[in-house]
Amino acid sequence: MAVGAATQPTTFGGDTIAFYGAHQAGVDTPPQAHAQFVALDLRPDAGRDELISILRLWTADAARLTAGRPALADTEPELAAAPARLTVTVGFGPSLFDRIGLAEARPPSVRDLPSFTIDRLEPQWSGGDLLLHLGCDDPMTLAHASRVLLKNVRSMTTIRWTQRGFRTARGTADDGATMRNLMGSVDGTVNPAPGAEIDDLVWDAGAGQPWFAGGTTLVLRRIRMELDTWDELDTHGRNLSIGRRQDTGAPLTGQDEHDQPDFGATKNGITVIPENAHIARAHHRTAREQFLRRAYNYDDPPAPGAVSDAGLIFTAYQRDIDEQFLPVQQRLAEADALNEWTTPVGSAVFAIPPGVREGGYIGEQLVGGAR
Amino acid sequence: MAVGAATQPTTFGGDTIAFYGAHQAGVDTPPQAHAQFVALDLRPDAGRDELISILRLWTADAARLTAGRPALADTEPELAAAPARLTVTVGFGPSLFDRIGLAEARPPSVRDLPSFTIDRLEPQWSGGDLLLHLGCDDPMTLAHASRVLLKNVRSMTTIRWTQRGFRTARGTADDGATMRNLMGSVDGTVNPAPGAEIDDLVWDAGAGQPWFAGGTTLVLRRIRMELDTWDELDTHGRNLSIGRRQDTGAPLTGQDEHDQPDFGATKNGITVIPENAHIARAHHRTAREQFLRRAYNYDDPPAPGAVSDAGLIFTAYQRDIDEQFLPVQQRLAEADALNEWTTPVGSAVFAIPPGVREGGYIGEQLVGGAR
Ligand code: HEM
Ligand code: HEM
Repeated sequence: MAVGAATQPTTFGGDTIAFYGAHQAGVDTPPQAHAQFVALDLRPDAGRDELISILRLWTADAARLTAGRPALADTEPELAAAPARLTVTVGFGPSLFDRIGLAEARPPSVRDLPSFTIDRLEPQWSGGDLLLHLGCDDPMTLAHASRVLLKNVRSMTTIRWTQRGFRTARGTADDGATMRNLMGSVDGTVNPAPGAEIDDLVWDAGAGQPWFAGGTTLVLRRIRMELDTWDELDTHGRNLSIGRRQDTGAPLTGQDEHDQPDFGATKNGITVIPENAHIARAHHRTAREQFLRRAYNYDDPPAPGAVSDAGLIFTAYQRDIDEQFLPVQQRLAEADALNEWTTPVGSAVFAIPPGVREGGYIGEQLVGGAR
Repeated sequence: MAVGAATQPTTFGGDTIAFYGAHQAGVDTPPQAHAQFVALDLRPDAGRDELISILRLWTADAARLTAGRPALADTEPELAAAPARLTVTVGFGPSLFDRIGLAEARPPSVRDLPSFTIDRLEPQWSGGDLLLHLGCDDPMTLAHASRVLLKNVRSMTTIRWTQRGFRTARGTADDGATMRNLMGSVDGTVNPAPGAEIDDLVWDAGAGQPWFAGGTTLVLRRIRMELDTWDELDTHGRNLSIGRRQDTGAPLTGQDEHDQPDFGATKNGITVIPENAHIARAHHRTAREQFLRRAYNYDDPPAPGAVSDAGLIFTAYQRDIDEQFLPVQQRLAEADALNEWTTPVGSAVFAIPPGVREGGYIGEQLVGGAR
């Protein structure tokens, strides 16, 4: 992480990310410093009409807020003045499709993940009919946008869970540097590149569900880090468990962060990157087994007796969860050196509907019109 | 808030705030974007010796971390590389003085506040033997520093509460602009100026307790904002309840944020700034009734059924709580239009010991040597 000593940051408060487009923003957008993920459930008496109202309200306000304009009837318009790359991304949980009588339109891989032996899932961090995901370089703008969007729909929804995450503050390090997580590792190095790779791996092409063309699927896992025992591991042990060096993020077989790992390399007859190292297990074995990772750190007040409650809000975006994500998750659940220091405590899956054209609303392709 | 459209923020990760000095940093330091306040209790079997160990450990690591150097035996030295104006400030709660057999050295005004009719205090947000307060422009650096400092003392302490707060991200608005709170108000306009005013109002001169010269006292109140009902109030009602305009932060009798309010001004026989407006009640009536406010916003996951759990981590620094803070707090508790939309849910008071010289440690003036 290159760190300068300049003391006059120019302001990035005015930076915006386009709201309208073929895809929702907030997926292939270079990650903002702050994120909030809120899962909501439709109230028992709400159905497709109420869902349409929610989506229309969110679309109208998200279009304005992401452009740095106050929401409709905004009671704190001043808090909307600095968009700071605000994005608003909406997702549909598996249960939603049943709730609104459109079970047959559910993209097949959008369903609860199978359970893994490593899981210690807590209901308070799992599931949800709807996802509201906000990203922003400014936590004030984010807090305001979040409240505006949530309060407008409170008569039709209840909040199931809220997760707040962060990365290095914008302006602390060079823009575009790979983030570090709270274990100290460079996290996010191997990821599909913008353009053809993202197009191929992330955005649905409409072959299965025509309404879903331009959408994607999201697996969100809340993964606690067992930092107390991780602390007891020396640098060498840490590097072996990941397969990369903590200091530079380089693979154990290379010099630089972006060097290709050589999983076959041996030294004195021993594999340099152990076979159960995280990257050895996670590395794709077929071209299809790839996805976009866009994790955030969390660090919440600790439980009584503990020193911290920290971990990763791990998010993976792909066309198809079964084909791309699951084989990797299964390999990690079976044997991943890192499992000793990480515990999945939450899990949720969402279809991220395609983008919005001006005049339309999020999810219109699914719930709008005669279908 | 002036917002530019520049997209190349220079990095401020290398900026540092001096750790050593006559006063602890983090009090008159221009507020960083992120803050964490942790209250700890000494374990039942810990006394003065353990306290000295804690203070020596914190001093050694704080001196390093605030300079952008890893802590001693830092397991994630990479997370210390960008100090981003990190400050570490330590405080002593009233109970600490008894615990270590130095009750007679307690600055007299450092004791639990009297209870007010407006209070709805929750034990989970109140009290504490020790305060560890971190401020930083980067939440990663803050999270790392916090964990390092807390884990080193876990055998001697338990964590009583943790509060996280934020302001506008550095680089979002102009440096030095007054922050806004989550009600939308400009908050922090009237405050003692650096230099003579701060010296006179904030830093103890050692007249009462010689060890305390260069120290100060802190009142920390966690104050929930009742945003659901605040939303129902129109702009005019909001402006009247504060005595200032939400849009510009100017007093109702002026044009600009820093114009002097004219509390006597009337229009058609009615006081322009109502007598029960927050600033009319809070404004000092004697020169002594002034203190330094340095609030942070909080926005935590809401309770079941709620849309948000937001408010202010209100902090006031002054030489003497009884003389400077209490008369104002009492006036506000009696009648402050804002009380309808704000609820104190936590309260704690700390002595902030003087600064540290190189080779010394925080609080040495109190607990060190023969005394
Ligand atoms: C707290 C949990 C986790 C931590 C701390 C973690 C950390 C890391 C780190 C440090 C790397 C190396 C740098 C990089 O390429 O990003 C990495 C790579 C990777 N991780 Fe994870 N990870 C976690 C969970 C997961 C999960 C749940 C999955 C998927 C099921 C996953 C999939 C991957 C993949 C695909 C790579 C790239 C492998 C390669 O091709 O080199 N990780 N992870
Ligand atoms: C959530 C609770 C509170 C909110 C939202 C709030 C908000 C504000 C606002 C918007 C101002 C005007 C701008 C400024 O000068 O900063 C102000 C001024 C002030 N507030 Fe508060 N405040 C709160 C609690 C308190 C408390 C608990 C105290 C002290 C006991 C206090 C003391 C003051 C003082 C001394 C001023 C300056 C008055 C003047 O001389 O003009 N406030 N506050």
